[in-house]
Amino acid sequence: MPDIVTAAMIVIGDEILSGRTKDRNIGHLAEMMTAVGIDLAEVRIVADDEAAIVAAVNALRASNTYVFTTGGIGPTHDDITAESMAKAFGLPCEYDAKAYAMLAAHYAERGMEFTEARKRMTRMPRGAEHIDNPVSMAPGFHIENVYVMAGVPAIFQAMLDTVVPTLKTGTKLLSATIQCPFGEGTIGDRLAAIQKTHPDTIIGSYPKYLDGKFWTELVVRARSQTALEAARADIAGMVDGLVAARDGGAY
Amino acid sequence: MPDIVTAAMIVIGDEILSGRTKDRNIGHLAEMMTAVGIDLAEVRIVADDEAAIVAAVNALRASNTYVFTTGGIGPTHDDITAESMAKAFGLPCEYDAKAYAMLAAHYAERGMEFTEARKRMTRMPRGAEHIDNPVSMAPGFHIENVYVMAGVPAIFQAMLDTVVPTLKTGTKLLSATIQCPFGEGTIGDRLAAIQKTHPDTIIGSYPKYLDGKFWTELVVRARSQTALEAARADIAGMVDGLVAARDGGAY
Repeated sequence: MPDIVTAAMIVIGDEILSGRTKDRNIGHLAEMMTAVGIDLAEVRIVADDEAAIVAAVNALRASNTYVFTTGGIGPTHDDITAESMAKAFGLPCEYDAKAYAMLAAHYAERGMEFTEARKRMTRMPRGAEHIDNPVSMAPGFHIENVYVMAGVPAIFQAMLDTVVPTLKTGTKLLSATIQCPFGEGTIGDRLAAIQKTHPDTIIGSYPKYLDGKFWTELVVRARSQTALEAARADIAGMVDGLVAARDGGAY
Repeated sequence: MPDIVTAAMIVIGDEILSGRTKDRNIGHLAEMMTAVGIDLAEVRIVADDEAAIVAAVNALRASNTYVFTTGGIGPTHDDITAESMAKAFGLPCEYDAKAYAMLAAHYAERGMEFTEARKRMTRMPRGAEHIDNPVSMAPGFHIENVYVMAGVPAIFQAMLDTVVPTLKTGTKLLSATIQCPFGEGTIGDRLAAIQKTHPDTIIGSYPKYLDGKFWTELVVRARSQTALEAARADIAGMVDGLVAARDGGAY
């Protein structure tokens, strides 16, 4: 039996919803999860709004192995992720002793004031463990199955690199891609029949419209190499048959 | 009183969650909504899974003026958006007479067979109105406050262009951006105080890390030009003061 591990992502930030900033973290997390054998099941982008964050994290942490969040962990007033997580877990939000000592030392070394704003970055729900930020200072943290990380892509990626090796992973979803020089309307009925005979696979059809022509990318996914190969062979056979028929004048 | 109109977006597609395809529609919708005065309140990316689609659309259509979906409207077996919408609304999913006649004529003209797969593209919840697809054939549709559109960016954008002029819009959220040559830790306390004195504005702080230095983009948003300008002036004053102090040796 394949072992299924799922994850959800919450992107926190008004700037994504207003269109001012284009998210670059969803695609990165999606690729990483697929690579290690975790199914990304859902992504939500929510505003810098406590109620919206609490609702999203409570819905998604209950139904997934892991939840990853990005954004809102800096020192300014609009960084409300830590408080919102504490609220979601029903825990007090307080200075984390380890993160506090680390940041206090960092600013003391540089002769910089450890302002209230800078102290804010060390606030976490009680019991959370901090996630190092090797780029800037604001640490992430994880509590139970929720991992809270930065929104700046370079920092998010660095944090994720330290988190991923600690995660439980499942049976990888393998995939094979077949390029098909026909539109979906031509292949749809045949492809549906192939999907039916290969219930252990997920067959996806992705139409492309390029230079005035329709073509299709067909992707088979399965957790077993045998199942994958059987469906791939049937799809390749279908495409070859259609090409032969077209070249013979049928299309 | 400002008039608030909100929207939510549902991106439907396994290929986005697996990382194989990078979404390009969220950013486009976000910019369009901001431009016309509709607040994009939430985005969800869900799998090609009926239960997931139904849950997302029912949650979001109840709490937003509009819901826009992308993906899953083609002719193949993995295109389950129409059926899922019908399920969400408790309506039968059936061939739309107008879309059916249009597609039948289109394929007849070209001497192409109107296959079962092609007919699938004309299925909609009963009572839905179709949205023209000027690029390929699969029409979108809208039912009540939900607009179902294509996932291919060129088609999504064309459909959205025909939909947007029909929408009710609200008071635009104006914005002003101030570049700040200091990191968030330096400005955090002052900025929080400014936010407090301007409760009718939303002040966002976006850290940038570039060439080994931290700087910050400060964005004020408000529905009134007067409120926007008052907060902007206070922030500009804060930045000028910090620059003068730094050049005087304080930083």
